[in-house]
Amino acid sequence: MTAIALMGAGRMARVHAAAIAAAGARVATIYDPVAQAAEALAETTGARIAASAAEAMADPQVEAIMIATSSDTHIELLDHAVSLGKPVLCEKPLAATFAESRDFVARVGEAAARRVFLGFNRRFDRGHASVREGVHAGRIGRLEQLTITSRDPAPPPLEYIPRSGGLFRDMMIHDFDMARSILSSDIVSVTAHGSSIVDPDIGRLGDIDTASVTMLTRDGTIINILNSRRCAFGFDQRIEAFGEKGMLMSDNPRQSGFRAFTAETPGTDAPILEFFMERYGPSYTAEIRLFLECARDGRDMPVNAIDGLMAAYLAEAAAASLKRGATVHLTGPDQDFAE
Amino acid sequence: MTAIALMGAGRMARVHAAAIAAAGARVATIYDPVAQAAEALAETTGARIAASAAEAMADPQVEAIMIATSSDTHIELLDHAVSLGKPVLCEKPLAATFAESRDFVARVGEAAARRVFLGFNRRFDRGHASVREGVHAGRIGRLEQLTITSRDPAPPPLEYIPRSGGLFRDMMIHDFDMARSILSSDIVSVTAHGSSIVDPDIGRLGDIDTASVTMLTRDGTIINILNSRRCAFGFDQRIEAFGEKGMLMSDNPRQSGFRAFTAETPGTDAPILEFFMERYGPSYTAEIRLFLECARDGRDMPVNAIDGLMAAYLAEAAAASLKRGATVHLTGPDQDFAE
Amino acid sequence: MTAIALMGAGRMARVHAAAIAAAGARVATIYDPVAQAAEALAETTGARIAASAAEAMADPQVEAIMIATSSDTHIELLDHAVSLGKPVLCEKPLAATFAESRDFVARVGEAAARRVFLGFNRRFDRGHASVREGVHAGRIGRLEQLTITSRDPAPPPLEYIPRSGGLFRDMMIHDFDMARSILSSDIVSVTAHGSSIVDPDIGRLGDIDTASVTMLTRDGTIINILNSRRCAFGFDQRIEAFGEKGMLMSDNPRQSGFRAFTAETPGTDAPILEFFMERYGPSYTAEIRLFLECARDGRDMPVNAIDGLMAAYLAEAAAASLKRGATVHLTGPDQDFAE
Amino acid sequence: MTAIALMGAGRMARVHAAAIAAAGARVATIYDPVAQAAEALAETTGARIAASAAEAMADPQVEAIMIATSSDTHIELLDHAVSLGKPVLCEKPLAATFAESRDFVARVGEAAARRVFLGFNRRFDRGHASVREGVHAGRIGRLEQLTITSRDPAPPPLEYIPRSGGLFRDMMIHDFDMARSILSSDIVSVTAHGSSIVDPDIGRLGDIDTASVTMLTRDGTIINILNSRRCAFGFDQRIEAFGEKGMLMSDNPRQSGFRAFTAETPGTDAPILEFFMERYGPSYTAEIRLFLECARDGRDMPVNAIDGLMAAYLAEAAAASLKRGATVHLTGPDQDFAE
Repeated sequence: MTAIALMGAGRMARVHAAAIAAAGARVATIYDPVAQAAEALAETTGARIAASAAEAMADPQVEAIMIATSSDTHIELLDHAVSLGKPVLCEKPLAATFAESRDFVARVGEAAARRVFLGFNRRFDRGHASVREGVHAGRIGRLEQLTITSRDPAPPPLEYIPRSGGLFRDMMIHDFDMARSILSSDIVSVTAHGSSIVDPDIGRLGDIDTASVTMLTRDGTIINILNSRRCAFGFDQRIEAFGEKGMLMSDNPRQSGFRAFTAETPGTDAPILEFFMERYGPSYTAEIRLFLECARDGRDMPVNAIDGLMAAYLAEAAAASLKRGATVHLTGPDQDFAE
Repeated sequence: MTAIALMGAGRMARVHAAAIAAAGARVATIYDPVAQAAEALAETTGARIAASAAEAMADPQVEAIMIATSSDTHIELLDHAVSLGKPVLCEKPLAATFAESRDFVARVGEAAARRVFLGFNRRFDRGHASVREGVHAGRIGRLEQLTITSRDPAPPPLEYIPRSGGLFRDMMIHDFDMARSILSSDIVSVTAHGSSIVDPDIGRLGDIDTASVTMLTRDGTIINILNSRRCAFGFDQRIEAFGEKGMLMSDNPRQSGFRAFTAETPGTDAPILEFFMERYGPSYTAEIRLFLECARDGRDMPVNAIDGLMAAYLAEAAAASLKRGATVHLTGPDQDFAE
Repeated sequence: MTAIALMGAGRMARVHAAAIAAAGARVATIYDPVAQAAEALAETTGARIAASAAEAMADPQVEAIMIATSSDTHIELLDHAVSLGKPVLCEKPLAATFAESRDFVARVGEAAARRVFLGFNRRFDRGHASVREGVHAGRIGRLEQLTITSRDPAPPPLEYIPRSGGLFRDMMIHDFDMARSILSSDIVSVTAHGSSIVDPDIGRLGDIDTASVTMLTRDGTIINILNSRRCAFGFDQRIEAFGEKGMLMSDNPRQSGFRAFTAETPGTDAPILEFFMERYGPSYTAEIRLFLECARDGRDMPVNAIDGLMAAYLAEAAAASLKRGATVHLTGPDQDFAE
Repeated sequence: MTAIALMGAGRMARVHAAAIAAAGARVATIYDPVAQAAEALAETTGARIAASAAEAMADPQVEAIMIATSSDTHIELLDHAVSLGKPVLCEKPLAATFAESRDFVARVGEAAARRVFLGFNRRFDRGHASVREGVHAGRIGRLEQLTITSRDPAPPPLEYIPRSGGLFRDMMIHDFDMARSILSSDIVSVTAHGSSIVDPDIGRLGDIDTASVTMLTRDGTIINILNSRRCAFGFDQRIEAFGEKGMLMSDNPRQSGFRAFTAETPGTDAPILEFFMERYGPSYTAEIRLFLECARDGRDMPVNAIDGLMAAYLAEAAAASLKRGATVHLTGPDQDFAE
């Protein structure tokens, strides 16, 4: 049983703790500045509470590190974990800001950055993974159009909006990573459109709640991403990959195979899976299994800090495009969007 | 353009007249004792009104005959058509009673009976035909279970019940024929169950409105037929053929590809196709095309008076099984059900 | 039976002739410069062949006019039909060029233009119409995102590309009209992306074969249109209208309710409806019925020359956007795209 | 955390142990005559290994008992558990034979039998439960037809057949219980048909592998159950409940929302959920939660030893019907099938 140091004891840390157990590993040490949270999680996992993050990571038993703290602490913890040379998995995003992400990768170097597992856990959704694998296996030949739809059931609390970084950095970042994971050619341009029509208060806070981004790859594939902060029928998460030999789709899975046929609704499905733990919960176990496997083999992580940086870079470009009302042509993560 | 003599000018005759036009043939002569009906149909088809059925059929132009009159006149008209040696298509049922059907086949002989096209037009439904063709092509290997569900949107008027012959002879006869068309082994037993729960008045008239029949073939295939005289969500017409390599299904087609996703109905399809003209309407054209093709080539008809007799025989056996509360073992259409 | 003068006897004219019969009207006169085509159609419809278009339209029996000739002759025939004051239905597009469309509307005036029925027949597709009617009836509340996917089974012959006007004017024009018919707010911007990846020869001829257009309405609705000249699994024609209360979808209808379940394909549907006559064929009858009804009542046509002009205007804007690599802000159909 | 004594440490015991943890309870004591199995399970659960079943149950910490041993030991363990007055959950079947089940209920009395939870865990499948709840809530009005399809992916090893009790007692027993849980009227007759067509060796051993049973309730509802020992496309587990106001269906859930559209398979779903742990695994947690809740409240168990007896009774009747080739009319679980 691999022994893991878990940074954080909040909601995401609890999700990871459960996934660690399901994946057949164990939490050996925990650190969280909120003592109560740390104690609660220590009790259900049997982990030891460490006096500091450094101490938790340094424990000689600890073979791997997981960071599930608030975004603004990721980089400091990552720096330390990398310096210890122990395998590390960090919850997304890589850092609170794009600049920090960029600096981190520059500082540790590309090779080390590829050894940091970044928790874009939607990649491990069974339907999404089938699309990606099918595209990579050539089932639809050349990929021509990729359409990703992501809609949350309801907007976050208004007070969260100002510190969210905006829809592109907070929500669409998952879709930027998903697009990159399916594509096999570089993205060369980003064009963003947005509206604040779900809740005008979101607009008053300077953000949008409805968005569409179009991207082009070097070899001509067209990507469309649609986002909304609200969806009346649940957590709408779909992908369509269209190419020369057909289309692969990841549709919303249903809560069950129940269907009702009445005069008014002559064939109604069961509701789609609810918000992210019901839809993506099983992905966390798959994610941790893969992390431990790569750690054991000393391989590069299949989703890593470079991916975190590149998704953040696309979010930055989308924000710039929306602001300018123009297409942004990409030159690389060093690109300066201040203008 | 093949010239056709059309017997009858009522509802089914009008259906056939439209299908004849769509199939690229023409109605040359019409006979119906109700002058007004004959005149109305003559006007839209350009056909000549004949003074008698015999005269309509005898017209030297006439190359084929279609019988779409009331059931009790079928046999007399068929006898005459057969005597003329012209190809003939007769609406189902072959005759008003099983005895008459049996006598007709005995009188004209098997060879001539195979030249009489019998209008079991559900065979030409695109989905049902795909199941039959798939089974015959071996897509599911050996056929092990065959389940046919047929439900009408609403019961017929009560006054129709006494002269309908009962559910097995009036409604399930389509399913008996469908089963026979898919099977490749003889049916050896029939067990019927029935209830009068849709409308107790149907029960008071001595009939049932809800039924289930189980049949076995010589080689062990189990067939289940489910019928109901009422279905709240429309005209429910489905087939499932299950075998060693999988299952072929003919599900209810929808009026369109429309779907609605709301909080209450998180994925509702368009209604299924409505009563028989919407569901089976296109089948009439396919049926007539096949009839004319076989007539031209002088081939046996792929659905003929023998099929009409055999479906009626199964209906007779089901009625006997229900009455006796016991399985009826089949010995052949000469079997005596009086007991 | 309304008597109709049919301009043209080619493929689309034959489609309309069949639809006229199915709608219970009749073709009284036909004109086509190709005598053989006119004769063939006269034979199956019983229409009289006129010596000129003007003579065909002028026939005192003729109550309505249908124009199904090549695009470059539409305007001349329309001018004449309008001058006669008889109701007229013109196949799409309104004219061969946007300038001609604009001049026509300017010349006859808005009121007369609204009396010219323009044959955007996809509006009459049952699934698409259900989406439009549902949105207008408020089933999803405020419309927030509208996504239209249109993919042809295969590209047209290469020699057609140079005279097609390009993908936006030839193919996406249907989707521009569809979007306008569903929206209830004006479109204010158009951003186009395109690639030539289906067939590089299309690119060499200066056209694209894969496209994505994003449009915004005045009140913030975001529209995405996806087109491809090739689709391996058939004629992919779908709409998703997403709003505050849910989503209405028009999915591809299937050829039947057939489904196959095998070890390799554990649930495969029947193919989708084939190219446009199978998918949109029934729409022509609905279209003609509505045309005749509006003609009889002297009402404005629900889809008319103004709609034809506006769809052409959006196509023009999309072409300009693609050329410029920038969003085009709309000012009205007088907008000058030469730059 | 409720402390549980777990009888058995084999495959089903491990399933239950995982479900106990997921339900927030804990295994306190374990007994299994195979020491190695007991030790393995003790290690992962932290439970104490008891020297005997009686000792495991008697532990003062133990608040509830779960029996997951081989069928032939159920009754002895149940008798002991009932004598202790502790809540008990017993894996299905209630006993190895119908006679033993009958004797057990007679011995402990109906009231005590209703306190024994019997693990018909398919009742807790999300889709099946939605059908049952919908029927009981009156969503389809009066229930008229109930159709249950259960097909295993592959037959059990041949050596299992002779000691399985036969298809009705081993496999269809789940469906008999499912039918009873949905119905609200007594079953009055059972008619069985069966074939040995999947594997003739099963027939040579005196059993069947393909079956259809028709049952009638006192108020006229018709139930059809279809079973097969083999299904090429997986674990086919479906229910259709049809009534005056419509139909509720539990279709096979899919492994994900993945769909593939190619020229050959123009719309193929992801595979259905695999054999029983993937399909019914989550039901075990729901089952244990409900058991603990009822235990805590001192309520009758919603699925109990009476249900176990009645399902066994229907299996007995089906076996008798098949043997006699005749409908069996039910008189109550005292009925003598020896003939």
